[in-house]
Amino acid sequence: MAPVAAVTRWRLLLVLSAAGFGAMGTPKPPNILLLLMDDMGWGDLGVYGEPSRETPNLDRMAAEGMLFPNFYSANPLCSPSRAALLTGRLPIRNGFYTTNGHARNAYTPQEIVGGIPDGEHLLPELLKGAGYASKIVGKWHLGHRPQFHPLKHGFDEWFGSPNCHFGPYDNRARPNIPVYRDWEMVGRYYEEFPINLQTGEANLTQVYLQEALDFMKRQQVAQRPFFLYWAIDGTHAPVYASRPFLGTSRRGRYGDAVREIDDSVGKILSLLRDLRITENTFVFFTSDNGAALISAPKQGGSNGPFLCGKQTTFEGGMREPAIAWWPGRIPAGQVSHQLGSVMDLFTTSLALAGLAPPSDRVIDGLDLLPAMLRGQLTDRPIFYYRGNTLMAVTLGQYKAHFWTWTNSWEEFRQGIDFCPGQNVSGVTTHTQEEHTKLPLIFHLGRDPGERYPLRGALLPGSQTAASRTGSEPQSMAICHGGSRTLKWELGAPCSYHQPQLCQH
Amino acid sequence: MAPVAAVTRWRLLLVLSAAGFGAMGTPKPPNILLLLMDDMGWGDLGVYGEPSRETPNLDRMAAEGMLFPNFYSANPLCSPSRAALLTGRLPIRNGFYTTNGHARNAYTPQEIVGGIPDGEHLLPELLKGAGYASKIVGKWHLGHRPQFHPLKHGFDEWFGSPNCHFGPYDNRARPNIPVYRDWEMVGRYYEEFPINLQTGEANLTQVYLQEALDFMKRQQVAQRPFFLYWAIDGTHAPVYASRPFLGTSRRGRYGDAVREIDDSVGKILSLLRDLRITENTFVFFTSDNGAALISAPKQGGSNGPFLCGKQTTFEGGMREPAIAWWPGRIPAGQVSHQLGSVMDLFTTSLALAGLAPPSDRVIDGLDLLPAMLRGQLTDRPIFYYRGNTLMAVTLGQYKAHFWTWTNSWEEFRQGIDFCPGQNVSGVTTHTQEEHTKLPLIFHLGRDPGERYPLRGALLPGSQTAASRTGSEPQSMAICHGGSRTLKWELGAPCSYHQPQLCQH
Repeated sequence: MAPVAAVTRWRLLLVLSAAGFGAMGTPKPPNILLLLMDDMGWGDLGVYGEPSRETPNLDRMAAEGMLFPNFYSANPLCSPSRAALLTGRLPIRNGFYTTNGHARNAYTPQEIVGGIPDGEHLLPELLKGAGYASKIVGKWHLGHRPQFHPLKHGFDEWFGSPNCHFGPYDNRARPNIPVYRDWEMVGRYYEEFPINLQTGEANLTQVYLQEALDFMKRQQVAQRPFFLYWAIDGTHAPVYASRPFLGTSRRGRYGDAVREIDDSVGKILSLLRDLRITENTFVFFTSDNGAALISAPKQGGSNGPFLCGKQTTFEGGMREPAIAWWPGRIPAGQVSHQLGSVMDLFTTSLALAGLAPPSDRVIDGLDLLPAMLRGQLTDRPIFYYRGNTLMAVTLGQYKAHFWTWTNSWEEFRQGIDFCPGQNVSGVTTHTQEEHTKLPLIFHLGRDPGERYPLRGALLPGSQTAASRTGSEPQSMAICHGGSRTLKWELGAPCSYHQPQLCQH
Repeated sequence: MAPVAAVTRWRLLLVLSAAGFGAMGTPKPPNILLLLMDDMGWGDLGVYGEPSRETPNLDRMAAEGMLFPNFYSANPLCSPSRAALLTGRLPIRNGFYTTNGHARNAYTPQEIVGGIPDGEHLLPELLKGAGYASKIVGKWHLGHRPQFHPLKHGFDEWFGSPNCHFGPYDNRARPNIPVYRDWEMVGRYYEEFPINLQTGEANLTQVYLQEALDFMKRQQVAQRPFFLYWAIDGTHAPVYASRPFLGTSRRGRYGDAVREIDDSVGKILSLLRDLRITENTFVFFTSDNGAALISAPKQGGSNGPFLCGKQTTFEGGMREPAIAWWPGRIPAGQVSHQLGSVMDLFTTSLALAGLAPPSDRVIDGLDLLPAMLRGQLTDRPIFYYRGNTLMAVTLGQYKAHFWTWTNSWEEFRQGIDFCPGQNVSGVTTHTQEEHTKLPLIFHLGRDPGERYPLRGALLPGSQTAASRTGSEPQSMAICHGGSRTLKWELGAPCSYHQPQLCQH
């Protein structure tokens, strides 16, 4: 339910905004369309340097909109990242973390009975206060028990699944993952919704595309502002594409999936043009976490120049492709160096709807409209968590790792590698290594790949190391940012690290 | 001197091309402008995914022209790469290789008395046959003894240096590197042409820019077709920029150098627009080899998602940024997947001038005009040499390594690392490892980073490895390409490898 303060603010806006969002008398807030990819990496789009250049529609979207090269997920794993997006809050606040293992990410496979707590206010729930109709298409992943159903958390419609499309299990003890239309289970993956693991053929992206197009058309007829959360999963292993796209990519099956998604995004934007609602529809494209390098190259994508991938708190695990598109409002062809987060989509969407974020709790998301509409840059930190453990923080161009970990030696020896081909001594560690007293620091502008730690520069008296890394004020920058983190009221983890950062 | 055949062909063209290149009566072949960077990496441009996006002019050049994501140098080191560009021939043919060490690259520091052999026909020499005025601005690097002077090899003008701007040496035994205007030595680096190693300040890119602008204006007045080879070196360590650019990049001093170069390219293209000769000027931007990761991140660039850097025959050592620009001729906003090489700039330039390449020797460069003007793709191999050793070959999307080597254990233990942060087991080897009987094969479309060797698929009977890497016809593709290499008349190295490639 929407807090009272938010509703009041929207009513206030209705009164005040005669020259506001709508020009037709009643101010109608803009439609909000979030295109959330699954395990797609920063490096998977042509506009981010993918050598095959197979995403003409997304590249065009970027050329017509604003590109964010420094945009982050809130967790390197699907469920907590999605929960953070929809609540505007870090997983440690919204409940999507575990305490049963240090730096262990929480998520919701079939066996898990948990899900998004009832006390969390989800974006669609709040948007109701401004009259929005909301639909989720695709993967929910915030719990599959009845109490976690998306229609219990603010969505008016759902077509998709509560989980990943793993399988087929084909047995009663472990049934295949269900697919829902609203409250009704309409089938299961591999049964009514086939996925051919041999050929990679599945029609799901087309089905999800049609669901999106149909919903937008209906809301346009009804003249209701809409929130569409298009959370498709064709790039999550096992990757799939429909027959016309299979075999069309230079990148193999993963690329086929990307091509079909790119084509679908083109069709979605085309519909907005056909409906003549581009100037009243805010569209944002991003992904839930970095490319899954454990599935690459056949079933996983690319994190471009960044280190490691999904599951890790290196840049490859959490830096995401991100494009904002709103012709006539967001200037075309812009690049914003604002540090952004999927949690900002919560706060930004509320701002678009004229709503204030809930005032009874800490919200981590930032309103990106000043960045998007006026090119304004706001200093803010990016926090990198695994489970309940703050692993790293980025402030400005500096990133400090308090803990490093890729995956365990045990997994690694079995051939599971979160950082294939990448090995930065003392950084890509297979044991959990603590650096809280002396964080491992990187300058992400000079060294986006996190290959050259500046550590020595913070060591008082360490002349050799300091002269090797030069005399830049790394420590000053961190202290400056560090003091700002306090203003963000992020509590224990930051104030805990703060003294260490500034102690020299 | 230009061979007779070439001159004849141009005269023939003069007769035949009433509706040819020029519309003013006498057909005037297009001006040719080669912008050759020094140690700039594939990942250094915004259009190739550099996260800071600080190359608006080059990105615009790409948007107005054609981008080549699969363009290669002919050697991972400066001198042989430049010699190959200007001769259209692999270093093993044009003489820029050594026999005094296996896989040892040749180049020309001050101490070396060698240089480009007199028997080689350089591009400016041949372009004389079509009436071109030629100038080299910047680094020659094909020998500093009098007989190797660029004006003895076809250039009409030179402003620049025979060598890298290493130093200062400041002593008589080893004087600072000279700077020439044509035949005359007009000063030396660090003396008349200062470079401040503390601040990184040097005015050289501005000087080289003015040289370029001045030359183009003069040729336009004289109505002579020109060939300008703008071989600047601001991104070669020690990197430098002029004061207005220092401290302006998010990437540090290396980024400052890139920003100044980007700005200069913008000014060069602007002059072409002002002179109204864009439709008669072919411009190509590329680099001599991959980013020097031994100098990164402060003095070296980025190879984006690719493995290793300068000096190596992994993609990071030889894949280059490449943009062709010729408004009205080359369609705007295109991406070509043609495998290209700096040697193609030789053959393409001759084709632009209406000249045939010399017929008395093997030429490795391809005429890229069919790719640029008509989007045609030509199947051709890319060869990766270190010194006189064929290390690898790419055919279509497959790359086979016959030898792997990064740098020696001895160097590596001293902290010299050609692949910092990257370590692909059995691939980034510190000993020279031979794989000629069973090449290490990568699919560059699925795996541009060369992290997942397909080796097992070629092993007959190796079921485990084969099933792990899937059942794609890697071997077929290589055999197919392999047989084509014979048509390229590349002699011993290829026919030697051919049987191994197809033996299973």
